[in-house]
Amino acid sequence: MDANGFLPLDDKSLVEYIKRTPSLSLKLGNKIDDLQITEVGDGNLNFVYIVISSAGSLVVKQALPYIRCIGESWPMTKERAYYETMALKEHGRLCPDHVPEVYHFDRTMSLIAMRYLEPPHIILRKGLIAGVEYPLLAEHMSEYMAKTLFFTSLLYLSTTDHKRAVAEFCGNVELCRLTEQVVFSDPYKVSQYNRWSSPYLDHDAEAIREDNILKLEIAELKSMFCERSQALIHGDLHTGSVMVTQNSTQVIDPEFAFFGPMGFDIGAFLGNLFLSFFSQDGHSDEENDRKTYKQWILRATEDTWNLFQKKFTSLWDDHWDGSGEAYLSAIYNNPELRLSAQKKYMKDLFHDTLGFGAAKMIRRIVGVAHVEDFEAIRDARKRAECEKHALEFAKMILKERRRFQTINQVISAIKELPL
Amino acid sequence: MDANGFLPLDDKSLVEYIKRTPSLSLKLGNKIDDLQITEVGDGNLNFVYIVISSAGSLVVKQALPYIRCIGESWPMTKERAYYETMALKEHGRLCPDHVPEVYHFDRTMSLIAMRYLEPPHIILRKGLIAGVEYPLLAEHMSEYMAKTLFFTSLLYLSTTDHKRAVAEFCGNVELCRLTEQVVFSDPYKVSQYNRWSSPYLDHDAEAIREDNILKLEIAELKSMFCERSQALIHGDLHTGSVMVTQNSTQVIDPEFAFFGPMGFDIGAFLGNLFLSFFSQDGHSDEENDRKTYKQWILRATEDTWNLFQKKFTSLWDDHWDGSGEAYLSAIYNNPELRLSAQKKYMKDLFHDTLGFGAAKMIRRIVGVAHVEDFEAIRDARKRAECEKHALEFAKMILKERRRFQTINQVISAIKELPL
Repeated sequence: MDANGFLPLDDKSLVEYIKRTPSLSLKLGNKIDDLQITEVGDGNLNFVYIVISSAGSLVVKQALPYIRCIGESWPMTKERAYYETMALKEHGRLCPDHVPEVYHFDRTMSLIAMRYLEPPHIILRKGLIAGVEYPLLAEHMSEYMAKTLFFTSLLYLSTTDHKRAVAEFCGNVELCRLTEQVVFSDPYKVSQYNRWSSPYLDHDAEAIREDNILKLEIAELKSMFCERSQALIHGDLHTGSVMVTQNSTQVIDPEFAFFGPMGFDIGAFLGNLFLSFFSQDGHSDEENDRKTYKQWILRATEDTWNLFQKKFTSLWDDHWDGSGEAYLSAIYNNPELRLSAQKKYMKDLFHDTLGFGAAKMIRRIVGVAHVEDFEAIRDARKRAECEKHALEFAKMILKERRRFQTINQVISAIKELPL
Repeated sequence: MDANGFLPLDDKSLVEYIKRTPSLSLKLGNKIDDLQITEVGDGNLNFVYIVISSAGSLVVKQALPYIRCIGESWPMTKERAYYETMALKEHGRLCPDHVPEVYHFDRTMSLIAMRYLEPPHIILRKGLIAGVEYPLLAEHMSEYMAKTLFFTSLLYLSTTDHKRAVAEFCGNVELCRLTEQVVFSDPYKVSQYNRWSSPYLDHDAEAIREDNILKLEIAELKSMFCERSQALIHGDLHTGSVMVTQNSTQVIDPEFAFFGPMGFDIGAFLGNLFLSFFSQDGHSDEENDRKTYKQWILRATEDTWNLFQKKFTSLWDDHWDGSGEAYLSAIYNNPELRLSAQKKYMKDLFHDTLGFGAAKMIRRIVGVAHVEDFEAIRDARKRAECEKHALEFAKMILKERRRFQTINQVISAIKELPL
């Protein structure tokens, strides 16, 4: 244990911790003599334990003061667990159907105990790699994004409440800096952390580092990420941060949460669906050519945006006379004006979404952290080919996003690619 | 004295305060038995005392928990004195030539003691009404804005330092809310606080309240004001916040300071110069038709932006390899790209500046707080005519700002008006 009382847990000390923490024992039905503990932290950053007793279950997540997948050479504040808890609680309050309940938080230990998302919940990314369709995914994710983003924006909050929350989450700057580096910087310069499917993408990685137009676009997005406190965003909403069954969709891991641009969340999710789309040819075999599944992914992507747009503006419609201070009802006082205001807002948000989505795609192909969608393709040449298509599409979107008015046009552009 | 130790001062208690505060006595050369004290708070918010002894001088400014020009019916946190002090010190550190030195701050008393700007210093607005040319004004104001804005932006600061400072100034939300109300909201709706030169501008005020296009534009600017932490801005940089002589330019009263969009400061200053321009016909008489002076104002406006642009990009050029994290030198690594990045940044900043400047003009004509430039015109019909020209110009700029590429084009548009 360090001087501040922090102790990195293992299976054994975790049991001791549970024993002396009544709220956790209670969740396990006080049956804590024969606990089944499994460490499953397959993410990049933390240790995650599933704890099951004969009478209950929970998950314990502990942040250590470095990035797990890199090691102690890349320190990272364990205070991220505090911001993750704040975000889980706030987003959970706003959208309880799609955020797991927090049972317990220990700031000294950087430890969160929360609902165990029992089988058949799996990480969405793994389901997408396996080719599984989730008929409610678009419905659920659009619901989650519409509620969490709308209710933490100035469309709903007073500027007093908004600025107070913005200030609080400024403390999560180390995690923001990690995003700044790995999403907005490293892919566009030489960095020891970058990697790509070499030698196949050597030229493509270099081309990105020499693309002035791309660099001007990424600067604009980085500025927005650093400066614009639009809503309390999840901050890392890729398909590895979502657990699913056929009926349930749960968003986890908001440790990167802060007040940033909404399009960063929506773009992360849509961008990762596109990555999945481009990876599918690498997973096709004689049994399944994945053609139908690719169409499902595109439909899910299209539906997610369209449903998000519908739900978000519907929440807005319900709250014209509410506490939100961005558009006072006494000023925006006629239906035509309200519609124009919403159209303008959603158009800008759509372009932000496309820009951030494209940036998230690029960084997963030539940056430090790759996605299993591509990594799981054994044939390196095949993998590189899939990645190359994704990369070309992302570069086009980042540069030309303003000419797209609807998600349908984007999907059409994908369908017209010579894949 | 209230329970927290706050006491609203008067001439007598101020003397007692000075006597028991060594740093103030010292500034007065310890000659405090025969002080000359004058209350000169002609601004809208605070009480300001000039204190002169036979051996020194200072100014004492005290914030009371309401807005002075409205009265106790409009409460306003006296904590604004804390943020004013923080801003005076930070901007003073960055640009000591144009910010008065702070001698003493008492948070309990919401009291700032600072340098007395001795005669012939006068408020710039009064100089402009009197028709006085200030040959160094553009040089000095561009210097002040370039330094204070550049060095508090992500072009110079690390994101760690930036977010820490952003969080600190989030506490000044009450003053931000005042701006939100009087600049971005009230002029566009019916409000008990609004007033205008009635009946001459009745139709014009109503037209603004019914102008959907204008309302969409003001929403975009309000969002930027509320959400975008671009730099530590003064927050109220009109010509009443500047004291001048022929050789000296001093920026005072940054109690509205927070991390907001740079264009709000630059626009406030340029917009108020334009207001002065449009008011000049109301001050012309047989001795002075003000025609030459109007040309000088336009030249000063043009020079201010052009010099600002030059100095700001020059600071940027000097700091490509510095600590700023918006544009890393390893990414923005060739002269052509750097120039493109700067051009894009300055173009956006120019459009923000025009938008905010126009919004500040409009609110001074149909909102709660008017400017002496117009108020001093005795003939109401004449005054309304001047205001009407200013209003029409501001509305055009707010709607069409994106078609202007240079300040010269804006000045040309003014010169072409049928005044």
